[in-house]
Amino acid sequence: MAEDTNESAAPGLSRRGLLGLAGATLGAGMLGAGAGIALDRTVLATAGAGSGSAAVYAFHGDHQAGITTAAQDRLHFAAFDTAPDLDRAGLIELLKDWTVAAARMTQGESAGAAGPASGPLDAPPDDTGEALDLPPAGLTLTFGFGPTLFRTGDGVDRFGLASRRPAALVELPHFPGDALVESLTGGDLCVQACSDDPQVAVHAIRNLSRIAFGRASIRWSQLGFGRTSATTRAQVTPRNLFGFKDGTANIKAEDTTVVRDQVWAAESDGAAWMGGGSYLVARKIRMVIETWDRQQLGEQQRIIGRDKGEGAPLSGGTEFTEPNFLAVAPDGGTKIDPDSHVRLAHPSTNNGAQLLRRGYNFVDGNDELGRLNAGLFFIAFQRDPRKQFIPIQQRLARSDAMNEYLKHVGSAIFAVPPGARPGSYLGAGLFA
Amino acid sequence: MAEDTNESAAPGLSRRGLLGLAGATLGAGMLGAGAGIALDRTVLATAGAGSGSAAVYAFHGDHQAGITTAAQDRLHFAAFDTAPDLDRAGLIELLKDWTVAAARMTQGESAGAAGPASGPLDAPPDDTGEALDLPPAGLTLTFGFGPTLFRTGDGVDRFGLASRRPAALVELPHFPGDALVESLTGGDLCVQACSDDPQVAVHAIRNLSRIAFGRASIRWSQLGFGRTSATTRAQVTPRNLFGFKDGTANIKAEDTTVVRDQVWAAESDGAAWMGGGSYLVARKIRMVIETWDRQQLGEQQRIIGRDKGEGAPLSGGTEFTEPNFLAVAPDGGTKIDPDSHVRLAHPSTNNGAQLLRRGYNFVDGNDELGRLNAGLFFIAFQRDPRKQFIPIQQRLARSDAMNEYLKHVGSAIFAVPPGARPGSYLGAGLFA
Repeated sequence: MAEDTNESAAPGLSRRGLLGLAGATLGAGMLGAGAGIALDRTVLATAGAGSGSAAVYAFHGDHQAGITTAAQDRLHFAAFDTAPDLDRAGLIELLKDWTVAAARMTQGESAGAAGPASGPLDAPPDDTGEALDLPPAGLTLTFGFGPTLFRTGDGVDRFGLASRRPAALVELPHFPGDALVESLTGGDLCVQACSDDPQVAVHAIRNLSRIAFGRASIRWSQLGFGRTSATTRAQVTPRNLFGFKDGTANIKAEDTTVVRDQVWAAESDGAAWMGGGSYLVARKIRMVIETWDRQQLGEQQRIIGRDKGEGAPLSGGTEFTEPNFLAVAPDGGTKIDPDSHVRLAHPSTNNGAQLLRRGYNFVDGNDELGRLNAGLFFIAFQRDPRKQFIPIQQRLARSDAMNEYLKHVGSAIFAVPPGARPGSYLGAGLFA
Repeated sequence: MAEDTNESAAPGLSRRGLLGLAGATLGAGMLGAGAGIALDRTVLATAGAGSGSAAVYAFHGDHQAGITTAAQDRLHFAAFDTAPDLDRAGLIELLKDWTVAAARMTQGESAGAAGPASGPLDAPPDDTGEALDLPPAGLTLTFGFGPTLFRTGDGVDRFGLASRRPAALVELPHFPGDALVESLTGGDLCVQACSDDPQVAVHAIRNLSRIAFGRASIRWSQLGFGRTSATTRAQVTPRNLFGFKDGTANIKAEDTTVVRDQVWAAESDGAAWMGGGSYLVARKIRMVIETWDRQQLGEQQRIIGRDKGEGAPLSGGTEFTEPNFLAVAPDGGTKIDPDSHVRLAHPSTNNGAQLLRRGYNFVDGNDELGRLNAGLFFIAFQRDPRKQFIPIQQRLARSDAMNEYLKHVGSAIFAVPPGARPGSYLGAGLFA
């Protein structure tokens, strides 16, 4: 099981210096896919200023890292479009190049073997350099394939993949209230970079984009400064920009049965190459925080269905007490409003469907009225969006009392293949 | 002298829980303005997940914090415009309200006394709540006054301040190559929020904006994810998005004579109310990183004048070796190009003028061609921009070999008054 490795920084060790240590620890420990290793804190407790964490996550394995991995603090997410002239061989080559670079960077190495500063003077460096002195900082890179990768454009099956498209990789329907901006939707490929140091996440996306030059380019992207979910029991539940704890009832890595049943796709689900993979839904949700901030505390709590300080359900108890939707208030109604977010999103309202959420708070500057362009960049992993995200979101979009303060502006879905085997590449099963 | 308090996190302590500790330490120690206190690490080394630092900086004092304070890892900067109907009394009231809230938030308290979750249910909370469980994380809030605050619009001296404008608070001239975007320039007021946790910085700007509602609104704002300067000798020199170390030769807090002569305005400089204050210049500089990344390593190093790995000047030595601009290369030229950034920005090229830089790397999504909207949000503090930023930037804008990869899109200047005295408010001297 993934340990919580959001530990204190060891910035005195460079990415290269840490390699020896990481290698030694990797050799000594048992590493399941997506499992975290906490490097010896006494070894790493060297002096030095800076940020980041010494956590290192294995890149290869049954599953990609960055799903059940303890949610890192910062995000850089990018959706890519393939170049019009990219063919099947070129796509495979790109995935192989990305696999090599991702395996290196997640272990704290530079994107290329020469590195940013040690290659020939008469050639461009094979790494951009801004992470040179930074620790691995728990970097995970998680790759996905959008529906458009499988599409037959103008009747041509560009990549020869049309017949391999998983049935679960549907286009998301239009939800009531959606205000999607075309330039914030879709994408042939995606990369989710999560790290406890934002510069490490940005460095990874930048170098993957540089490697893709001429073959794929960023369609849209998003930085997230604060995680809004806990994905292990050891993690403190963080707060979203409504000021409430978010993700109290999230699927946790320790819930192994739920993870197996609701996060990982099985070979028997239809697309055998997706066995051990998952489906990622991303939604960029603007929050109208200025209006929210003028709302009464009682009304805020009614909308969420939990109290703001502790995060306990309004039916009583503490944060992790199960909500009692039947508990009656003195006025005769239920203590928890039927249209509250906690009730509408609860598994009991959704045939038991759950999501493993890994969203992040964002602020993209401000609008012309001086309001912060702020919100939640929602990311959820699941076994089948047709049974999980889509029906849950249809219910929320219809009735959630929170909708008045939300605007969904971006949206995408990706099939996240299983982890790469050493010597192979991401998505190899799709091309087999 | 400011200690480097970018220490490991103590996230197990809530903002409220930390208060007792911080208060005790504050009472026990001598606190100069802007001086950092490192809370007892053994007390704070509690278990828990999350990010941020337990550093707490004093708010009141001779100087505002956030200038010589060890540069925190993250930034949220906002320029505000005052409402058209705001008068002198209203401006003073706003500054008093901001002072109270800033004094609270920098000590890890909520913006208002009731807090986000403990006030009456039938009123909006006086804090938005997303920092409720986070440590103070070294938050500093630094306030400034733009030239427009002193302007007589339509012949009317709105705030009665026209005669108090410091001569050093000039409008910045147009520099060669400037490509300024109107909506990213100027502002009547500014707030620089720096913290080791971005959510703490965002929370502070959001709550100050909320408090200003109807009196001032955000004109433009910027998040920065990675510091590009060291302001104390204990700090590791960070890297900018060109992949090079930045700020090796920055003014450090320990350089007390230089700080006195080149950072702090003196009462005798002309505007007595600015004694102990400073002048902040902000420049939003887009970097054309995709083009830079395709440049040869040797050419990158020629442009900077330093080697990329160590950051040593090309004349030899290690990072902190003084560059020798006369050292001759085998080809007969100088080892350091005369148009290199290190030579043009060096004090010896600028009559000894220096800057205390506190800039941050930023990425604001991407453009329609898939290029990251990335760059450096440059912030510099100085005693007199007429003798420091302006002539230095004029020289750089004319000749810097780096210009091919830069585009200055945002620009502003602010007079940063001295620190507030306990019981008084920020900028009180201006209204005396």
